[in-house]
Amino acid sequence: MKADAFYVGIDMGGTNIKAGLVSPAGKVHAEEKIPTDISADPVAVLKQICDLIKALAGHVPEGGVIRAAGVGAPGQVNSTEGIFYEGPNLPLWKNVPVVQQIQESVKLYAALDNDANLAALGEYAFGAGQGVTEMMMVTLGTGVGSGLILNGRLYHGGMDSAGEFGHTTIRFDGPVCGCGRHGCVEAYVGTAGMLRTLQEKLDAGRNSVLKDRDFGSVTPRDISLAAAGGDTVALETLSEAGTCLGVGLGNAANLLNLQRVVVGGGVAGAGDLILEPARKSMMRVALKVPGETIEIVPARLGNRAGLIGAARMAMLITEMT
Amino acid sequence: MKADAFYVGIDMGGTNIKAGLVSPAGKVHAEEKIPTDISADPVAVLKQICDLIKALAGHVPEGGVIRAAGVGAPGQVNSTEGIFYEGPNLPLWKNVPVVQQIQESVKLYAALDNDANLAALGEYAFGAGQGVTEMMMVTLGTGVGSGLILNGRLYHGGMDSAGEFGHTTIRFDGPVCGCGRHGCVEAYVGTAGMLRTLQEKLDAGRNSVLKDRDFGSVTPRDISLAAAGGDTVALETLSEAGTCLGVGLGNAANLLNLQRVVVGGGVAGAGDLILEPARKSMMRVALKVPGETIEIVPARLGNRAGLIGAARMAMLITEMT
Repeated sequence: MKADAFYVGIDMGGTNIKAGLVSPAGKVHAEEKIPTDISADPVAVLKQICDLIKALAGHVPEGGVIRAAGVGAPGQVNSTEGIFYEGPNLPLWKNVPVVQQIQESVKLYAALDNDANLAALGEYAFGAGQGVTEMMMVTLGTGVGSGLILNGRLYHGGMDSAGEFGHTTIRFDGPVCGCGRHGCVEAYVGTAGMLRTLQEKLDAGRNSVLKDRDFGSVTPRDISLAAAGGDTVALETLSEAGTCLGVGLGNAANLLNLQRVVVGGGVAGAGDLILEPARKSMMRVALKVPGETIEIVPARLGNRAGLIGAARMAMLITEMT
Repeated sequence: MKADAFYVGIDMGGTNIKAGLVSPAGKVHAEEKIPTDISADPVAVLKQICDLIKALAGHVPEGGVIRAAGVGAPGQVNSTEGIFYEGPNLPLWKNVPVVQQIQESVKLYAALDNDANLAALGEYAFGAGQGVTEMMMVTLGTGVGSGLILNGRLYHGGMDSAGEFGHTTIRFDGPVCGCGRHGCVEAYVGTAGMLRTLQEKLDAGRNSVLKDRDFGSVTPRDISLAAAGGDTVALETLSEAGTCLGVGLGNAANLLNLQRVVVGGGVAGAGDLILEPARKSMMRVALKVPGETIEIVPARLGNRAGLIGAARMAMLITEMT
């Protein structure tokens, strides 16, 4: 008797660990979430992850089985060996054999990849990236993350480090980025960059509903809300971030002749207030054919993209075995 | 009886058409060259190309056969269909079914790709790109061309237009490029960009052996020669071009985690006078892992890279059939 296959996707963040039971069609049947204990030994955290997988097994419908589990983690990984090397949000995690430990504990095939890659894979398989083969997912948050689908497959690069779109230099003598370099896309489009743009406008005497706010508490969401309410300075701030994003996307379009860019993350909630300026500036930078054949669209899977992408990776490894 | 296989590689340029009889090991056994008649009907030029293939057949050693022919052409192609769409150096060539016409005439499997792609493929298979799977070939000439090898295969992008590295924006409000955009790598590293840098230094009153030359006749080669002779202004001009090249390469390293960049073309003749500044600035732009795992090396196949790459493509299509 053929059983219905299900897959577990795990999205490990610096704040929460989310786990989902996912169907081959990408539907999330059950979800679990626990806070990430970043001060705990990785072995203990991996045991929690295994417990989440076991808990989800209890949600498998009658006649179903779990075929494999995929894990997305925030940092540098070796996806072939299933090892988490390191990441700024998980200070105790150094060279952790994630896949080996999960497989030994729950006796299921498992796989590991970087969280930004898996968000791209999730949108590609079941979200806004469907129907093309060359795609980049860009996640706009505190920083600017990304993952690449090339020739219809997740692209890893030589050492599993591809996809650092946020650190594309678009003005080599531009403002300092959080990474210490000058004029990265993230230096304009990340939270700190947008706040710098806003601050410059306020310092120049411009008026804004954000003027009298305690500046340390202003978020990109506040800027989006102010812009949606018609605040000119907030609108310009978003527009300038979008314009800089578009320059970077034009570079990626010229180098890779991408068919689609999927933009997600909290800042993407500003929608066309940031995406329309990005489209315009991307078209100025992109050459004829790459420009005519690329589109920028909003993500569809929200904060479940990573979890669904992790489950998709689990599907792909079972297809290979 | 098993015959020794040979392949024909054709490198079509705006000036010359070069054809070579190439062994499976990438050795060029015979070569032919004719001037490109850009004012002739493409059908007539294709007939000349077929005649070159027939002429090379006369050089096949006893017991050998020609298995296939590959053609590289300067412009936008459809590599799947074997159609040349258009290119600035071949004004009469619009939507020419190159592969179909060659196959019908010489009764050999044929394939077509962009010349920059095939130079990359040639260096990858038989030159300075051997031994890695993620590689970019950059050709420094009047403009800055490039081709990408990803996952060990030529990367084409969604519409056969990938590899426009030269039009990576590295300063969005920088000088105007030949393409009309601002601050492209080519705007600094192409011939016009290097001459602009040189001119600015001379206008500022700097002394140089190039000072009294008729400026319209100065070439990048003259700058290289002056630099090799110790001319400070020429050295700085090359160094600044290399620095800008390195910013673009750092961007590519961050996005693609490339293992190697192979630099060819006439301007690359300046060697480390341009490559060393490029390495330094690439390392400033590249993040830790992408920076530690990439190298910039000079090309090895010289102006035969395109021809050898075209023959390599012919090998690959016969492997598939």
